[in-house]
Amino acid sequence: MSEAVEKVELNSDERVDYLVRENLKIIQSREVFSFGIDAVLLARFPKIPRRGLILDLCAGNGAVGLMASADTSAEIVEIEIQSRLADMTARSIALNSLQSRIGVVCDDLKNAAAYVAASTVDLIFCNPPYFKYSTNKGLNEKDALTIARHEVATDFESICQVAQKLLKPAGHFALVHRPERFIELIDTLRKYDLMPKRIQFVYPKVGAKANLILIDAVKGGRLSGEKILPPLIVRDVNGDYSSEINEIYYGKEKNSD
Amino acid sequence: MSEAVEKVELNSDERVDYLVRENLKIIQSREVFSFGIDAVLLARFPKIPRRGLILDLCAGNGAVGLMASADTSAEIVEIEIQSRLADMTARSIALNSLQSRIGVVCDDLKNAAAYVAASTVDLIFCNPPYFKYSTNKGLNEKDALTIARHEVATDFESICQVAQKLLKPAGHFALVHRPERFIELIDTLRKYDLMPKRIQFVYPKVGAKANLILIDAVKGGRLSGEKILPPLIVRDVNGDYSSEINEIYYGKEKNSD
Repeated sequence: MSEAVEKVELNSDERVDYLVRENLKIIQSREVFSFGIDAVLLARFPKIPRRGLILDLCAGNGAVGLMASADTSAEIVEIEIQSRLADMTARSIALNSLQSRIGVVCDDLKNAAAYVAASTVDLIFCNPPYFKYSTNKGLNEKDALTIARHEVATDFESICQVAQKLLKPAGHFALVHRPERFIELIDTLRKYDLMPKRIQFVYPKVGAKANLILIDAVKGGRLSGEKILPPLIVRDVNGDYSSEINEIYYGKEKNSD
Repeated sequence: MSEAVEKVELNSDERVDYLVRENLKIIQSREVFSFGIDAVLLARFPKIPRRGLILDLCAGNGAVGLMASADTSAEIVEIEIQSRLADMTARSIALNSLQSRIGVVCDDLKNAAAYVAASTVDLIFCNPPYFKYSTNKGLNEKDALTIARHEVATDFESICQVAQKLLKPAGHFALVHRPERFIELIDTLRKYDLMPKRIQFVYPKVGAKANLILIDAVKGGRLSGEKILPPLIVRDVNGDYSSEINEIYYGKEKNSD
């Protein structure tokens, strides 16, 4: 165990994952939250402003904001409603000695304006709960994983409302979500004057339908000229990570083409 | 030259292309119209009804309807505004002895209801003009290629209006278009109660942005559950047609995965 890890305490269900490319340590827990490939793809998706203010909504264990910090000297605020996860985030920030420029707030994102002034944010990240919540799904709405995955504590419309309020004009809102809600996502973004400009679909393997969508929307952006980026195919025909995914995780060079 | 070709006359600018998979001959002209990969992809994109009525709007030289005829015994009506192209279509239909179940109408598609009763069509194809027209683009609005490529004689909204009127409830509208108009296309489709349900992006090569989009919309379809099909990448890293494209053109087997 490295020296840094010994600075913070870990609960019995927690481990520390190491991110090679960013030289970052992140506290994870199978029981309450561990980030997935969606968080990694999201952190690498938008152009990261060199300075300014970045917000990570639905921050979970803070992975997206932590990863983005490697590419910027901007101030980063992580907002997470679950205190157990916000606490993991705070300890990961300490573990990487990033307290001077990453902060974490444990609150409902609808209160975000209490911490961040309106129209001041350059980039908002969001890896939101993907699934609609209904009481007949047999879910425990107090369960940490249910809250992270289902729209119990927030929903996409509330998130867009906050993004619209806090972003600067022409600020970017970068999100990852599920493609089966694609049209609804676009509707809701546009309702809050957030125009999708760069879209990338993620496919789990060759020949499969997309299972994730990355959207980069611009506050006050104009309709038309949207770009559909090259497909991200996670696994190659042998079941190994594709060269694109290896590059995103480890910074390896792409295959030449 | 085969016997069949000798049944119809060719103009000096025309040639006959042979489609292996469909065993079809199609009259082409570099001067006024020859179909491209977009038409081939469109013809192969939707589920083709075994019988019933199929409409091909903006039919050009009739390629999409002709190709689809290989997979169905449905009646097919091709509608094309340019008489030179409608004439090519009529001769291609004769060349393949398909007069009994493919017809061609030379008229503005806004008059389509004069030839096809409302709410009777199972599937509408459309490979429309892709580009917005403006008088300051230095285009000759009487030029055949300009009319085929630019919204001079029709536009996407007029096409959707006709599709909405002529399709049966739950009938399908399959189209190919440009991804930089993606959000506008979805808006206009939904304005006419045509809900995109299957979407496929086409990328010219590995690592490039999408340059075509295929949409299968359903009249009266519900929002949500839209499927983003596997990406179609036209050329592999060597610049050759990918296995998917070879299969679409020649019916070759896909790589196993």
